[in-house]
Amino acid sequence: MTRLPVKDRFDLPDGIIYLDGNSLGPLPCSVPARVASAVTKEWGGHLIKGWNVDGWMAQPVTVADRIARIIGAPPKSTVLGDTLSIKVHQALSAALQMRADRKVILSDNGNFPTDLYMAQGLIRQLDVGHELRTPNPEDVADAITSDVAVVMLTQVDYRTGRMHDMADITARAHAAGAVMIWDLAHSAGAVPLDIAGSNAEFAVGCTYKYLNGGPGAPAFIYVRPDLADHISPALSGWLGHDAPFAFEPDYRPAIGIERFRVGTPSVIQIAALDEALAIWDDVDLKALRGASIQLSELFISEVEARCPELTLASPRNPEHRGSQVSFSYKHGYAVMQALIAQGVIGDYRHPDMMRFGFTPLFLDSDDIRQAVDILQEIIADRSWDDPKFTTVKRVT
Amino acid sequence: MTRLPVKDRFDLPDGIIYLDGNSLGPLPCSVPARVASAVTKEWGGHLIKGWNVDGWMAQPVTVADRIARIIGAPPKSTVLGDTLSIKVHQALSAALQMRADRKVILSDNGNFPTDLYMAQGLIRQLDVGHELRTPNPEDVADAITSDVAVVMLTQVDYRTGRMHDMADITARAHAAGAVMIWDLAHSAGAVPLDIAGSNAEFAVGCTYKYLNGGPGAPAFIYVRPDLADHISPALSGWLGHDAPFAFEPDYRPAIGIERFRVGTPSVIQIAALDEALAIWDDVDLKALRGASIQLSELFISEVEARCPELTLASPRNPEHRGSQVSFSYKHGYAVMQALIAQGVIGDYRHPDMMRFGFTPLFLDSDDIRQAVDILQEIIADRSWDDPKFTTVKRVT
Repeated sequence: MTRLPVKDRFDLPDGIIYLDGNSLGPLPCSVPARVASAVTKEWGGHLIKGWNVDGWMAQPVTVADRIARIIGAPPKSTVLGDTLSIKVHQALSAALQMRADRKVILSDNGNFPTDLYMAQGLIRQLDVGHELRTPNPEDVADAITSDVAVVMLTQVDYRTGRMHDMADITARAHAAGAVMIWDLAHSAGAVPLDIAGSNAEFAVGCTYKYLNGGPGAPAFIYVRPDLADHISPALSGWLGHDAPFAFEPDYRPAIGIERFRVGTPSVIQIAALDEALAIWDDVDLKALRGASIQLSELFISEVEARCPELTLASPRNPEHRGSQVSFSYKHGYAVMQALIAQGVIGDYRHPDMMRFGFTPLFLDSDDIRQAVDILQEIIADRSWDDPKFTTVKRVT
Repeated sequence: MTRLPVKDRFDLPDGIIYLDGNSLGPLPCSVPARVASAVTKEWGGHLIKGWNVDGWMAQPVTVADRIARIIGAPPKSTVLGDTLSIKVHQALSAALQMRADRKVILSDNGNFPTDLYMAQGLIRQLDVGHELRTPNPEDVADAITSDVAVVMLTQVDYRTGRMHDMADITARAHAAGAVMIWDLAHSAGAVPLDIAGSNAEFAVGCTYKYLNGGPGAPAFIYVRPDLADHISPALSGWLGHDAPFAFEPDYRPAIGIERFRVGTPSVIQIAALDEALAIWDDVDLKALRGASIQLSELFISEVEARCPELTLASPRNPEHRGSQVSFSYKHGYAVMQALIAQGVIGDYRHPDMMRFGFTPLFLDSDDIRQAVDILQEIIADRSWDDPKFTTVKRVT
């Protein structure tokens, strides 16, 4: 097993303390050569033959098997493709098919908006009176009533890091006769997962955060192996067909997880992702979790001791958090811009939340202490109170 | 304007005559450096800031504007993302919304299967009695009856290159009160297009064929500018929201074409595509079409003169063809494998079709004559009749 951190496997810019691996993971050192090979040797050299000789066609499943290990799923239960939004649509469409007699989709108001938006779009599209309920996250367990068709939750809250109890919520969903969908966007590579053990029907996630697949890396979907062959995919694209190259006139779904493929895989993104995932092959996910808790506990205690103006917005109990910590501060936006200007990269989420991700693959205690030194200084000397920080426009 | 061919802008392997640019375009010489820069300088160096400083967030529209020019669409009417299958679903969902009182989707049995499969999946998902009609391509015009909600056709047939008359079919669809969707997968970069002039409501296409975007390059969708703001997207992902980073609880579609975005763009693929599209900036599409017809006419006359065993499977009139030519031959599969083994790369489509693409960016008359020399020799000496060619397994 790999001893953490493995900083030397990442190409981090000098002078940067990167606390945003929960949003976009950094570049693994071996990715540029791998991508160059996919572009020059595979595409350039093999042209159309790449689909066969370089395994492009098989990669959405073979590369996903590396993710399956990370989320506690068996091989060939997970497939890569599309974006997380599309994977949400696939899981939700399938879940509603499975519970056609019920009309309630239960999520929570801390879910990442695209999950809610995709549910709203599907409800409008189906137009048979489905209802999306979004109670507060802490009220979800009690909201799983017998009219709920599907419970769809993001395990770790993108703003606060608050973490749902996967085993408990899934058991409650099943006891009520509902289907369970977990969005693992902020979980995969952040916390140990046992998706198979949870018995949840579906899980989806993205690969450019903790898994370091790069900007635009494809999403994944897990389908419980006993179910896959009973689902008629709504997004029935040719690569989910049992024989895509027979060019039959009628859709005939592939056996197993392959039917959740839709169109042509993003070969160059998958090359980058596959290389990034190689780092995980020897990582003990429990040791990673231990290191994550140690870093986040250190960060919280240092910030609270040295920056009393900031208020912890994440659960205090590390067992109830993923691998990120947020602090509220009314000048949080400007402070975050000032931090970034000094090389401490976190991010900001409306209305007042400074968000910091703890990624033990490339962070250690010295990084955390140094980040808090800079934060303390910015707040103490009010250097954030400058038009260049208060008015800067950023898309993300 | 660029004088064709521009072979020196492509990194083609030595000894290869590549007649499969209609399936996967070859590698433009400047793409590896551009991709390396996107990976190392943008992702590696700028990390999360790439969304702002490198324009990642805006690229699905800015890069699509290069495609808009090629398909005869105005700027900001086209957006990149997802795969062609997903773009078909978006266009078809929107079209059915617009004609809620009608239940017929009209396509043809020469359409690429994924378009038909996606329609079948959507019909099952909506479950309100839609019907997919697939007459023979030559019977489509007469099949546009007043019960047709939407006519969805691929302009150029993936097997034979047969080309629908876009202006005529669109006018007939509109006269019958139907919405028109064109799939330009085998048209964009192959034939001059005037999608705006056709007045069609939607067009979709892929970018890894004639546009040379690389394996897994994103698809595109065009929406007629007067319509975009009236459509409620079924796949309502966060990047189609009017303010994605406000993280509002409810979906509120962006103005214009942006609402047809779904999830996170595939940044690395888009970098490759953008660079590949730069080649097109100075290409006169009418001159390209002239060169394509000249090459394909030469190929047909040479093959018919020298290989009488083969039967032309494409329309003889070049005005009725896209930029590919197919010949039927009962031993076509083995002959194609033998051709590939000698460096002449075309492909094979069930049941007996040898398919050759004519891409004047990097092919000239000498290439065509040389390809026919090799074909003639393979057929004359029956060198294709060898287990290594008759039994080879290929995915594509």
